[in-house]
Amino acid sequence: MKKIAILGSTGSIGTQTLEIVRENKDIEVLGMAAGSNVQLLEKQIREFSPKLVAVWTEEKARELKERIRDLDVRVVCGMEGLIEVAVIPEIEILVTAIVGMIGIRPTVEAIKAGKNIALANKETLVTAGHIIMPLAKERHVSILPVDSEHSAIFQSLQGGQKKAVKKILLTASGGPFRGKKEEELLNICVEDALKHPNWQMGKKITIDSSTMVNKGLEVIEAKWLFGVSVDDVQVVVQPQSVIHSMVEYVDGAIIAELGTPDMKLPIQYALYYPERRYLPGERLDFWKLGKLEFEKPDMDTFYGLSLAYEAGRAGGTLPTVFNAANELAVSLFLKRQIKYLEIIEIIEDCMRAHRNIKEPTLEQVLDTEQETYDRINSRR
Amino acid sequence: MKKIAILGSTGSIGTQTLEIVRENKDIEVLGMAAGSNVQLLEKQIREFSPKLVAVWTEEKARELKERIRDLDVRVVCGMEGLIEVAVIPEIEILVTAIVGMIGIRPTVEAIKAGKNIALANKETLVTAGHIIMPLAKERHVSILPVDSEHSAIFQSLQGGQKKAVKKILLTASGGPFRGKKEEELLNICVEDALKHPNWQMGKKITIDSSTMVNKGLEVIEAKWLFGVSVDDVQVVVQPQSVIHSMVEYVDGAIIAELGTPDMKLPIQYALYYPERRYLPGERLDFWKLGKLEFEKPDMDTFYGLSLAYEAGRAGGTLPTVFNAANELAVSLFLKRQIKYLEIIEIIEDCMRAHRNIKEPTLEQVLDTEQETYDRINSRR
Repeated sequence: MKKIAILGSTGSIGTQTLEIVRENKDIEVLGMAAGSNVQLLEKQIREFSPKLVAVWTEEKARELKERIRDLDVRVVCGMEGLIEVAVIPEIEILVTAIVGMIGIRPTVEAIKAGKNIALANKETLVTAGHIIMPLAKERHVSILPVDSEHSAIFQSLQGGQKKAVKKILLTASGGPFRGKKEEELLNICVEDALKHPNWQMGKKITIDSSTMVNKGLEVIEAKWLFGVSVDDVQVVVQPQSVIHSMVEYVDGAIIAELGTPDMKLPIQYALYYPERRYLPGERLDFWKLGKLEFEKPDMDTFYGLSLAYEAGRAGGTLPTVFNAANELAVSLFLKRQIKYLEIIEIIEDCMRAHRNIKEPTLEQVLDTEQETYDRINSRR
Repeated sequence: MKKIAILGSTGSIGTQTLEIVRENKDIEVLGMAAGSNVQLLEKQIREFSPKLVAVWTEEKARELKERIRDLDVRVVCGMEGLIEVAVIPEIEILVTAIVGMIGIRPTVEAIKAGKNIALANKETLVTAGHIIMPLAKERHVSILPVDSEHSAIFQSLQGGQKKAVKKILLTASGGPFRGKKEEELLNICVEDALKHPNWQMGKKITIDSSTMVNKGLEVIEAKWLFGVSVDDVQVVVQPQSVIHSMVEYVDGAIIAELGTPDMKLPIQYALYYPERRYLPGERLDFWKLGKLEFEKPDMDTFYGLSLAYEAGRAGGTLPTVFNAANELAVSLFLKRQIKYLEIIEIIEDCMRAHRNIKEPTLEQVLDTEQETYDRINSRR
């Protein structure tokens, strides 16, 4: 039995991870953490019988305890609780499917405890890659990417040699507004931005896909995961999302991973790596596929992507500013408190105002996050 | 220094192999064999200084000896000479870039002598795969595919597990007559058939590409190289020849190798495997690529491909009949002695008339080749 814990079990990646567990019979979920959806969490606990569960607030913890008082499950809360789940002694893999910088501390502690990380939390590497990757190396821990693009790159690197990698080709659907110009984005409402052409995902990441900030975060993440500079990561728009990403080698050969848009594939690949298992689901049918298109991303209109390159190139605390500003701006947009284009304006404003700290400590990273939030809030 | 010998040094693959040798400084060519182009062979000998050279006829051997009498190079001829080059004691890799079933015996002898084979001779596996592959396994010898498609599959299998392979997706350009119907092929002349849209190759293989017989031979070759049934090899028409081939795994992930159409890539990959080296040349630019199209092959019009599946499925001596009939028919077409569509009619006629021998010996394979030639010649 493979023993795992999941941070963010009620989210999109978390529930799909549990589907993989359900379909296979050899994974045991010892720990789960969720934010506030105790109703779904209760159902998950009754099905998967973890021994330890974390929620964010004490209030939610009380509510959950009441709901599952017939079960022998310990309920914890807050950052302490999250970390407790992350370092459950018996687990081999921690799935970090929690959204936001809240995922960093539990990830660090899990690595220190020698757990392999199935990483679906972008913020961890974007803001603290310089801390996480050396630590993982030191503790001989694998960081297994769970999102579709990085998993595709990871798969395309199997059997290749690191020194033979020329560049990474990160594919992007281009989102719902591909081909539009700035003036057409002026009056985008929440509903428009939530219509992703190919992938079913959470709200925040769907907005991020529409602005291409998500792709920007992935560029920075790729830098850390694969040890390249951001300028060796080329974004290729491939609207059908069939090619999940590619690696170009020094001899000109390009190895790619293709498939239907199913997040369960990268999740399962990370859980069983290096083994591939049967996965139910639709298969790509090239006889019916028709065509695949390729475009250069429009980095003028979607200049959040340019800002990401700038942040990734600079390093230090600037990627944290980029990420935190986007996080808060997107939540303001989702609450209809700002207009669509203001998301990127806010990110740029925060980046321009920031004095970058090179090689920041984890505390400095988290302070930068708070300062970024404060700046945005103070101006409102 | 890596020591190699090349059978077919003056052909398309042979000369490109020598370009790789020229560009790198750590490969020594100890032996070369060519058919009759002694003029080019002399140039190659003067540049690469092999110690042993074979040509096909005694007459050509005399001519070559006269040309290089100032050099200390031994010249041999015939099948014996070919085999002598194939088993030069010091060589590590034999590049079999010779065209036709003439390549089988030297390949068998080289394997017996423990040489790795960089295989560009399709006929070897198509007609004698059942002998070659077990022999290679027994002698712990690698069969490294040199053509673009099989190299792409081989590359896509790196880091994967054999048992996790679901099927092979063999791409095809569709050739110059893609989309045409039978009635449009009635009056195809040699010049039309020699216009391949993407690849610069020898005449015989260019005709084979236009009839899709080449793809059929590749299906049978893939069966032996990768240990699958021909029905697990799906031909996908991809007219731009950008995707060189793919592997589908049990989880639905598809790993593909893409690139510009440059045969030097698979040649170099085979010579340095598993290392990838820098290779000069044009790179794929996805920002400018536009689109890739995919189609189901038209196996009614190009029913040579169906015949190949039939031959591959039956095994025994039937693939030899398929191959030999095609070889002679194509040469008759190139000499303008038959019409384009007769190529496939001749193959079908020979296959229908043949009594298949299961698990044939090498002698039976070679006898079948001769019988096929005799049948075609007797009817003319």
